[in-house]
Amino acid sequence: MKILEIREKTVPLNSAISNAYINFSQMTASIVSIVTDQYIDGEQIIGFGFNSNGRYGQGSLMRERLFPRIYDLSEGDYQSDNLDNIDPFKLWNAMLTNEKPGGHGERAVAVGTIDMAIWDLVSKIAGKPLWKYLSEKFNKGNYDKSVFVYAAGGYYQPDKEVDGLIEEIQSYIDLGFSVVKIKVGGGDVNIDIKRIEAALNLLGSGKKLAIDANGRFNHEQAVTFAEIIEPYKLRWYEEPGDPLDFDLMSTVAKNYYEPLATGENLFSLQDATNLIRYGGLRPDKDILQFDPALSYGLVEFLRIIQMLESSGWSRKACIPHGGHLMALNIAAGLGLGGNESYPGVFEPFGGFFDGAKVEGEIVKLHDMPGIGFEGKSDLINLLRTSLK
Amino acid sequence: MKILEIREKTVPLNSAISNAYINFSQMTASIVSIVTDQYIDGEQIIGFGFNSNGRYGQGSLMRERLFPRIYDLSEGDYQSDNLDNIDPFKLWNAMLTNEKPGGHGERAVAVGTIDMAIWDLVSKIAGKPLWKYLSEKFNKGNYDKSVFVYAAGGYYQPDKEVDGLIEEIQSYIDLGFSVVKIKVGGGDVNIDIKRIEAALNLLGSGKKLAIDANGRFNHEQAVTFAEIIEPYKLRWYEEPGDPLDFDLMSTVAKNYYEPLATGENLFSLQDATNLIRYGGLRPDKDILQFDPALSYGLVEFLRIIQMLESSGWSRKACIPHGGHLMALNIAAGLGLGGNESYPGVFEPFGGFFDGAKVEGEIVKLHDMPGIGFEGKSDLINLLRTSLK
Repeated sequence: MKILEIREKTVPLNSAISNAYINFSQMTASIVSIVTDQYIDGEQIIGFGFNSNGRYGQGSLMRERLFPRIYDLSEGDYQSDNLDNIDPFKLWNAMLTNEKPGGHGERAVAVGTIDMAIWDLVSKIAGKPLWKYLSEKFNKGNYDKSVFVYAAGGYYQPDKEVDGLIEEIQSYIDLGFSVVKIKVGGGDVNIDIKRIEAALNLLGSGKKLAIDANGRFNHEQAVTFAEIIEPYKLRWYEEPGDPLDFDLMSTVAKNYYEPLATGENLFSLQDATNLIRYGGLRPDKDILQFDPALSYGLVEFLRIIQMLESSGWSRKACIPHGGHLMALNIAAGLGLGGNESYPGVFEPFGGFFDGAKVEGEIVKLHDMPGIGFEGKSDLINLLRTSLK
Repeated sequence: MKILEIREKTVPLNSAISNAYINFSQMTASIVSIVTDQYIDGEQIIGFGFNSNGRYGQGSLMRERLFPRIYDLSEGDYQSDNLDNIDPFKLWNAMLTNEKPGGHGERAVAVGTIDMAIWDLVSKIAGKPLWKYLSEKFNKGNYDKSVFVYAAGGYYQPDKEVDGLIEEIQSYIDLGFSVVKIKVGGGDVNIDIKRIEAALNLLGSGKKLAIDANGRFNHEQAVTFAEIIEPYKLRWYEEPGDPLDFDLMSTVAKNYYEPLATGENLFSLQDATNLIRYGGLRPDKDILQFDPALSYGLVEFLRIIQMLESSGWSRKACIPHGGHLMALNIAAGLGLGGNESYPGVFEPFGGFFDGAKVEGEIVKLHDMPGIGFEGKSDLINLLRTSLK
């Protein structure tokens, strides 16, 4: 059971959107394939992965540091103990060899991307959908047959303000979504309030609308904004300030009764632990959005879940950032609280299977071995043709 | 005053040493030059920089994300307000465009490396040694004519245990050093104690010996080790555990009376702020080792100093990691507590000027414009020949 080759290509995300912090027109992502000497029904088993939006592709880092460490291994170094599969934890340890602690940035993204391809591979070798594989390995056979999803969008777009936003939200409703997230923090609070009220008008209830400041506010702005929006009783208020400013988060939590959300820009178990220790978040209502594909992969995410549960949190508090099939499998198989989705944005990486219907707040699972990329034709075509 | 070209080359560090976490035989560094249209005495002004040891070269990240953002600027975008120089803060802002908050890893190293070349450039344009330029700009004209330095070494080396260590420490004493730092945390506490006692024997006093665990210990090990070494009254006990585990640091601080040190693996103002908020460190004795060349450069380091001083700390608590001329200039010009040095290791990046003498604990300054690389022949030769 041998890894023959690992391939990477950096592709543009081709998106004209922007949030309160960055615009995505220059954003890239890495796509990765791991080719093995294993076959199912005459077809060579290949694992695929990519990094979530918002951080750049990491092909050079992979080629300079991570691929050589995997190529240096012999087959026995990464086989599972009972020899029937590849062991993601052994490959993970190899990738992190000769890496100092701390400094969790691009390296976490690179490892997370390869980790996705490894889990795709491992569940394909096992002949099971990843969600089922995870359920059996790490969740006592429990899984969720359907997963809560919400439409994350409402980005600031050139020449679109409230009208464009309403059109966009209507399109999510037409797709079957009932919970929508929009961006705030672009600079003008009055415009943000107009956008929030327009969205609420359409969605009908605060619990159907989440907002995301993408870390833009300082302490005072974050608290002031919290006071302004509290009466709307929104689904959640996401990343009010710098994601590593736990003191800011804790101050907001003291001053805001409704749910808060954060975590997509914390890239390691240690950073996640610090959020839980110092962020003042409330296990009974707040949402954690750690994104395995940006933060050392599912191997590290399993440790994060363990840390959460030993700190009095439920894994149901986790609704990962990312909006892709990997996160959907993890949410279903490990029993998380749900999954992000970006309908029509970050395609073909975002979204679910061909023909998958969102009904209210849920999306159904798939039965393909692996993550299920083969059931999303635009994505699998890109992966196959780009990684030849 | 135009930036004509920015060049980068990744070079091997070529070192057989290892600490408790990594070995350095595969380690690389980026060297960078910034070529301008300015001349002094008929010679084109070029700024040079490189990243400190311990993190890998970041040429690809620079080429993919940072250089294009600088090339996209027009001259006026980065000139100082009075038009007599280039403004490092404006270039810094440009480099961080379209970068999300959080995830301070390789990006911080890449920016820090270019930032070094920018300050070399800026002080050359001003016709002043960087330490003097910094003193006038940011320290009311104050500076230290000589800087405390210590010899950081005592790495674990294949086939060398106590004998090799004694030989190494003696060589530092012969070079003029009186304070030496050695590694601990390699796995066997008894060997570490033997190494500490051998070093103390030679150095004569605990205040002449610092030890560095490179983040290797867990909570229990870190505290146990602290209890064992407390009677030696060492200069400092560095990075007992994961650099981002502020709770571990705070626990050690509660259980250990002598000085602690940490910070080289915190790569941003926000991470440094969290250390001060949650790490339980004591402003009257503990040492902070934030390394500008790994953490978004001097631009970010100036903010860190501001944060420290507004939190009741003195800048004298700062003794940066890195062991190079940039840190020496910063220490002298801003009045920090000192500077690391790695005699004979990480050459030609480590060490000071040709013929510079260490006398006891101090090293004297230079009078060359810029950081002074031109006064260290092995280094300037490497920079000039590799970056043609």
